[in-house]
Amino acid sequence: MENFSVTILGSSSASPTSRRNTSSQLVNFYQRFYLVDCGEGTQIQLRRNRLKMSKINHILISHLHGDHFFGLVGLISSLNLFGRTKELHIYSDPRIKDVIDLQLEVSETALQFEIIYHPLNLEEKELIFEDKKLEIYSFPLEHRIPTCGFLFQEKQSFPNIKKTYIKKYQPSIEEIKKIRSGEDYILEDGTVIPNAEMTNEPPAARSYAYCSDTKYFENLHEFFKGVELLYTECTFMKDLQEVASNKFHMTTEDSSKLAKESEAQKLMVGHFSARYRDLTEFSEEMQSLRPGTILVNDNDTVNVRED
Amino acid sequence: MENFSVTILGSSSASPTSRRNTSSQLVNFYQRFYLVDCGEGTQIQLRRNRLKMSKINHILISHLHGDHFFGLVGLISSLNLFGRTKELHIYSDPRIKDVIDLQLEVSETALQFEIIYHPLNLEEKELIFEDKKLEIYSFPLEHRIPTCGFLFQEKQSFPNIKKTYIKKYQPSIEEIKKIRSGEDYILEDGTVIPNAEMTNEPPAARSYAYCSDTKYFENLHEFFKGVELLYTECTFMKDLQEVASNKFHMTTEDSSKLAKESEAQKLMVGHFSARYRDLTEFSEEMQSLRPGTILVNDNDTVNVRED
Repeated sequence: MENFSVTILGSSSASPTSRRNTSSQLVNFYQRFYLVDCGEGTQIQLRRNRLKMSKINHILISHLHGDHFFGLVGLISSLNLFGRTKELHIYSDPRIKDVIDLQLEVSETALQFEIIYHPLNLEEKELIFEDKKLEIYSFPLEHRIPTCGFLFQEKQSFPNIKKTYIKKYQPSIEEIKKIRSGEDYILEDGTVIPNAEMTNEPPAARSYAYCSDTKYFENLHEFFKGVELLYTECTFMKDLQEVASNKFHMTTEDSSKLAKESEAQKLMVGHFSARYRDLTEFSEEMQSLRPGTILVNDNDTVNVRED
Repeated sequence: MENFSVTILGSSSASPTSRRNTSSQLVNFYQRFYLVDCGEGTQIQLRRNRLKMSKINHILISHLHGDHFFGLVGLISSLNLFGRTKELHIYSDPRIKDVIDLQLEVSETALQFEIIYHPLNLEEKELIFEDKKLEIYSFPLEHRIPTCGFLFQEKQSFPNIKKTYIKKYQPSIEEIKKIRSGEDYILEDGTVIPNAEMTNEPPAARSYAYCSDTKYFENLHEFFKGVELLYTECTFMKDLQEVASNKFHMTTEDSSKLAKESEAQKLMVGHFSARYRDLTEFSEEMQSLRPGTILVNDNDTVNVRED
């Protein structure tokens, strides 16, 4: 289903390579767009993928390592240049505001729109955004500097009434609401039609978790238990477990363990160290640890659920 | 001659387009590399052009509009990541230091090399760099914020002694120096060989001027009179002269006038407004105003002098 998808704008770690930009992803949920991280060149990648930056109203920055936010000020400047007036929400370590403000100040740029900064909670999982159909949570990761991951949780929709019953009884809008929320239907003669008989189970709510940058830690999976699509950073192969842990990054093995523990249905990994010019061995190792894992490439779009 | 060339890393104005990055150029002078401006994505462009960023020791930033410096912190971070220890010189509005420092601070990045900041003189032309073969000058432009242009001036080399005379008289190293610096040669019997007879005129020193961003003003050409290759910003076509002047930018007509007044041998222009998706008309107008003008594209390399 294309109405909940993730486009990879950058999947390199630390520094861009000739094939990969630094971290950024665009989450599309029913044509509402959420940018997750904004490494240098993100605005160029948006343009390359014909994604309208003007449609982005919410930007989530996991942490303030440059490869996750150096593209933010350029994106903001371009939005301003293109005439944005609508407010923009940024969820981040609050120091991002100083970084943006200083750069706008030296360039004597007066924004024509308001930026609303939402400081992330670094202690516990927190709801940071909600609308009719979606909730977004941040949760604390363990990295060298304060860092959060993000969970996009679709709200569970109500059951649908079977068409035959609609036709047969022609319930009012009020009655439809009651049936969809679980009530039985009572005919004028007192006959009770059980709710289960009248309704179809709705599809399970979908979810996407973004987990970068972090080292593996024991309770991490609890923040997104049962997630449908899990993205984790996967900077190193497993022979570099010690390097990974020391640098607060994850390996192929960490990623597969985390996916298993969280009972994720699908795993995709990125944020590969630039040391892996060719990902063949990396991919083989990943597939042997967890078959079907997606190693992302820039400009890939992955649906949270395939039809 | 490839030993003095300019590679265009970005030639868009204000915001990147699908074909053009924001301003940056790499000047190669005998394999010493000088980066002029550093818009977002410059490090990616360097990589794409297989230009080693580690070889850059001097970075010149014309002014603090984002499209001329938003890529600097990413470049610095990558240099650090790749193990640079050699000092880096940055010539700029001094406030650039605060911008870099704050971003390194929030990302908890400790540089392993020193950055030496050289504030630009906004009042008059000034020598900012000199070695055996090259001088670099900054000169003030007229833009919405403090801005400088740059002149790369090759030093005039001394005349060469004709081979036949070397063979015939076998002068000592000391004598060669004297002859090359203009003295006549006096034989042991007192015969004077006139300097002009013994020497060949050296090729004229080459020069390159970078003039962006600015509006046209009357005395601008004096900063680089007689320049060999002139690059000017050329944001608009001539029908938008008023817009250009109000925004402190130049038109095709301004550029050609400036080239003429400065007696530049070659003119190249860039920094085109994103409004010109197709440059056909722009190019036609430019060629009619000054035939032979080069409209730059990203990844072009232009020699200051062709053989």
